[in-house]
Amino acid sequence: MSNLFLRTLREDPAEAELPGHKLLVRAGYIRRAAPGVYTWLPLGLKVLRKVEEVVREEMDAIGGQELSFPALLPREPYEATGRWTEYGDNLFRLQDRKGADMLLGPTHEEMFTLAVKDMFSSYKELPLTLYQIQTKYRDEARPRAGLLRGREFVMKDSYSFDVDDAGLEAAYQRHRDAYLRIFDRLGFDYVVVHADSGAMGGSASEEFLAVSPVGEDTFVRCEASGYAANVEAVVVPQAPPLSQEVVDATPAARVEDTPDSPTIETLVAQSNALHPRTDGRAWKAADTLKNVVVMLTYPDGTREPLAVGLPGDREVDAKRLEAQVAPATWTPFEEKDFAAYPMLVKGYIGPAMLGETSAERGGSGIRYLLDPSVAHGSAWVTGADEHGKHVYDLVNGRDFTADGTIQAAEIREGDPSPDGAGTLTLARGIEMGHIFQLGRKYAEALDLKVLDENGKLVTVTMGSYGVGVSRAVAAVAEASHDELGLVWPRALAPADVHVLATGKDQAIFEHAEGLVAQLTGAGLEVVYDDRPKVSPGVKFKDAELLGVPTIVVIGRGLADGVLEIKDRRTGERREVAVDEAVTQVLAEVRGEQAVAEAAAARPQA
Amino acid sequence: MSNLFLRTLREDPAEAELPGHKLLVRAGYIRRAAPGVYTWLPLGLKVLRKVEEVVREEMDAIGGQELSFPALLPREPYEATGRWTEYGDNLFRLQDRKGADMLLGPTHEEMFTLAVKDMFSSYKELPLTLYQIQTKYRDEARPRAGLLRGREFVMKDSYSFDVDDAGLEAAYQRHRDAYLRIFDRLGFDYVVVHADSGAMGGSASEEFLAVSPVGEDTFVRCEASGYAANVEAVVVPQAPPLSQEVVDATPAARVEDTPDSPTIETLVAQSNALHPRTDGRAWKAADTLKNVVVMLTYPDGTREPLAVGLPGDREVDAKRLEAQVAPATWTPFEEKDFAAYPMLVKGYIGPAMLGETSAERGGSGIRYLLDPSVAHGSAWVTGADEHGKHVYDLVNGRDFTADGTIQAAEIREGDPSPDGAGTLTLARGIEMGHIFQLGRKYAEALDLKVLDENGKLVTVTMGSYGVGVSRAVAAVAEASHDELGLVWPRALAPADVHVLATGKDQAIFEHAEGLVAQLTGAGLEVVYDDRPKVSPGVKFKDAELLGVPTIVVIGRGLADGVLEIKDRRTGERREVAVDEAVTQVLAEVRGEQAVAEAAAARPQA
Repeated sequence: MSNLFLRTLREDPAEAELPGHKLLVRAGYIRRAAPGVYTWLPLGLKVLRKVEEVVREEMDAIGGQELSFPALLPREPYEATGRWTEYGDNLFRLQDRKGADMLLGPTHEEMFTLAVKDMFSSYKELPLTLYQIQTKYRDEARPRAGLLRGREFVMKDSYSFDVDDAGLEAAYQRHRDAYLRIFDRLGFDYVVVHADSGAMGGSASEEFLAVSPVGEDTFVRCEASGYAANVEAVVVPQAPPLSQEVVDATPAARVEDTPDSPTIETLVAQSNALHPRTDGRAWKAADTLKNVVVMLTYPDGTREPLAVGLPGDREVDAKRLEAQVAPATWTPFEEKDFAAYPMLVKGYIGPAMLGETSAERGGSGIRYLLDPSVAHGSAWVTGADEHGKHVYDLVNGRDFTADGTIQAAEIREGDPSPDGAGTLTLARGIEMGHIFQLGRKYAEALDLKVLDENGKLVTVTMGSYGVGVSRAVAAVAEASHDELGLVWPRALAPADVHVLATGKDQAIFEHAEGLVAQLTGAGLEVVYDDRPKVSPGVKFKDAELLGVPTIVVIGRGLADGVLEIKDRRTGERREVAVDEAVTQVLAEVRGEQAVAEAAAARPQA
Repeated sequence: MSNLFLRTLREDPAEAELPGHKLLVRAGYIRRAAPGVYTWLPLGLKVLRKVEEVVREEMDAIGGQELSFPALLPREPYEATGRWTEYGDNLFRLQDRKGADMLLGPTHEEMFTLAVKDMFSSYKELPLTLYQIQTKYRDEARPRAGLLRGREFVMKDSYSFDVDDAGLEAAYQRHRDAYLRIFDRLGFDYVVVHADSGAMGGSASEEFLAVSPVGEDTFVRCEASGYAANVEAVVVPQAPPLSQEVVDATPAARVEDTPDSPTIETLVAQSNALHPRTDGRAWKAADTLKNVVVMLTYPDGTREPLAVGLPGDREVDAKRLEAQVAPATWTPFEEKDFAAYPMLVKGYIGPAMLGETSAERGGSGIRYLLDPSVAHGSAWVTGADEHGKHVYDLVNGRDFTADGTIQAAEIREGDPSPDGAGTLTLARGIEMGHIFQLGRKYAEALDLKVLDENGKLVTVTMGSYGVGVSRAVAAVAEASHDELGLVWPRALAPADVHVLATGKDQAIFEHAEGLVAQLTGAGLEVVYDDRPKVSPGVKFKDAELLGVPTIVVIGRGLADGVLEIKDRRTGERREVAVDEAVTQVLAEVRGEQAVAEAAAARPQA
């Protein structure tokens, strides 16, 4: 450590918010170069390389072939698939000295597709899985939490190529199994959730989320069934239609005065005060139908309004709506938007003025989509399109119709599981991996075809699979630390052993050097704190901060023939005889490695 | 090979000029993604990684600590050192979504300097050597020859930090030794030459050039003394002044008619025809003084003319002039430039109208620098600043003076060595490594100081050292191939052995698989050509093209208990008994590795 390029900090860095991020900076693993752009210092680079190696081994084990595409890419392939535009501000674009448009690759579907098109032409050459561990770029609006969402980051991306759907399904399953092994080996508490395919296109997709309170993604789980999904991917089932008898028994819709009731809260209060229910129950927010109008903006700049109808006790979930409208983005309806649609009375918008066919009767013509919990035949209190007025007993299907449904309402703890097996709990996670069945979207856009066994040209079907390699370092740091510092799992630790020589006695340093030489000679990686003028207290603090799993302290006890071995993870300390030290440390490190290897070799459920 | 992502080509790719580049593409090692930007296919990536590993081992051996800086960098540090501007069009610049200026790092002096400034503060923490093996970007005007001068490329860059000049000298020497070992191990024919420091600033610098007829760099060597230098770095000694007697004996300068003599050739002809020498010798081009005026453009856009006076038998060397005027670039004087300086008569420009003080007597005021071979006291035939007229016996120092000297004239085969020990030969090379004693330029610009042993702040002195890692792959390909394909040295080959199963007999394939399993089990890397329906001829051709050093052919001979081992490098083939095959292949591969390791371990002269 007297030579190591390392400076530990006692104070939290100003730019860091999350505890793991603070510790990575304080312990000298990473250093910020620009917002969302980090330097890997020597110890950090060692951890990053260990993650890479785990990922590489598991990708090789499923027959993946490693190659490496450039980060600096030409515009044309991304233009062909539409992503040059769709990525919006998230794409780093630049021009070269000749004015040619280029980009920094955010992900490489296009490039892999073109390479396979150029090199392969027959079904005999498939299936094929290619991967790279490479630096990627995304100009995130809010680069966050250090490595968790950086603008330059290391990712493993792989792509499968098959002639038919069964092949894709098998490739997807192989990746899924490999990912389970990868995240087991990295030591995560993780969950596999159904995911939204978003802007990537394609059908089936799952995410591997590291369970963490600091995660950006919300996911749901149902303990009864094992169902798990990213909140964007939860598909709330369509409520079954009410019977015709129920509809027939519902009184005719009627407009009532509800002064000063532009919010659900005021509407419920006014309804209970002025128009009590005849069945004696009180009006609740869930009896009202809220109509939320938003403005969509497509990547090419075109704008289009959208109306969402949902029960008044739920909010629109920003991320769920975002996932549904992608690649468009949405913003709340503004005053100028209302001015363009004078038939929409803010706070009193009703179904009558919404829907694509509403223009015929003087409505807005705005596309109108209902939450699936709004059953056909159900009656609602909703806006009457007039200031201070609402309509009661407006029945879906009898008195109004929408243009379709949308999965945009918030999901709540305790909601029924979409598979009908129980209720949902909510938690947060960090997206560590994502696997997609892309299908033929990219192959069609870039014309990737091969000859099948009958000599006919068929479009190839693809999968796309990512692991956040640099993000994994951050996720482990967030998951595995205490108030003293980082606590690395054995598989990712920057070293196997941290040896401290404490005190001033030359014999202590000499003995420590001998021990370090023996451990290093046996193939272990050792951090050796040989700093001559640093106090034992500072050395202990630094060792806790760095978080190497096994700490060996050589100090005063040496005179009595003992030294101390401490486990950073459990805090357990024990004295061992000097002669036994090497044997014991080796046994500990190798024993854990053997256990980990056995676990990794176990086939997955 | 039936699964490998590889397609060999029989035809040369259109974009390739150099033989090694053509073969790298034909053999499926690399693939162009954009001009100067390449994808590493599976076999190519293996070679690249082997180069990286050699470089890493040798950097670690001299105490280098590996880290990794981002490629996407903020503008400010490069602004502070002036390189944001100085790099001109060679820098890839871009803006992020907030409009902040960023760049793709061409080299990282600034970032390393700032990191050390931030983390270290005392002489006790020095000396320090840091390195990275990382992707770099330069927007080359003429990206050339595939990987030789790419726009995205892999480089090892390292930086040394010392408190004093002796420390820098030692760090430089350690790097020099490490580089000798690196290039020995990579198997280059290389030469270490004195180099020009160019835009990097700093003092001492040497280049490691792979000797190659396709190299972009010209270098000189003196066999007698061992002197070697990049042509830009050759310092022609100042010719000794002629004695006063010689000057006194020189007739007075006189203007003569030399109609139609705007070139040296016509001037010599006219001089011999109209004004023969009195000593009976004929006029030669070397008796004339040619004055070449060029326009310099600085990175900030300012322009300034420059005049170079040199003997008429030499041309200005474009690269030597470029190195002298850097960071400015130069272009020939154009008609509009002549129009701005009407006193300069094209084809008849003489010293009278040149020089900073010439403006006082109606001259151009243009800075005028002489080639060092123009001795003080020497007499010349040169322009008289009037159409069709030249001046004879114009003596340097008597009749005109210049503002200084410049090392811009071409160097020729047979020129005297600058060290006076013999004559120069010229050859071409590929710049594979470059080591610089930067000194305090970057530390001063970015204020990197540490406390010395007396508690005084001193500016750190730095070295900067680069190895072209991806370029090394290209250089080896250019150096090591024949008409059939690539011929990899053992240390860089993508595999140790290439096993061919030829014929249709199932027993052949079964035996080959067994052999591959044994070789792989023994730790060798094997390419196995298991393609069932490919003819032996195609398999042989592909094996020669790929260039793995040892080729094992299993075919008809199997029935007689023999197979063939071929050395791709020597072409030597031998039959061996089936039972002996594994032992013999292992002996060959390991024997060569042992020899290479012994050679690498040998201390350098």
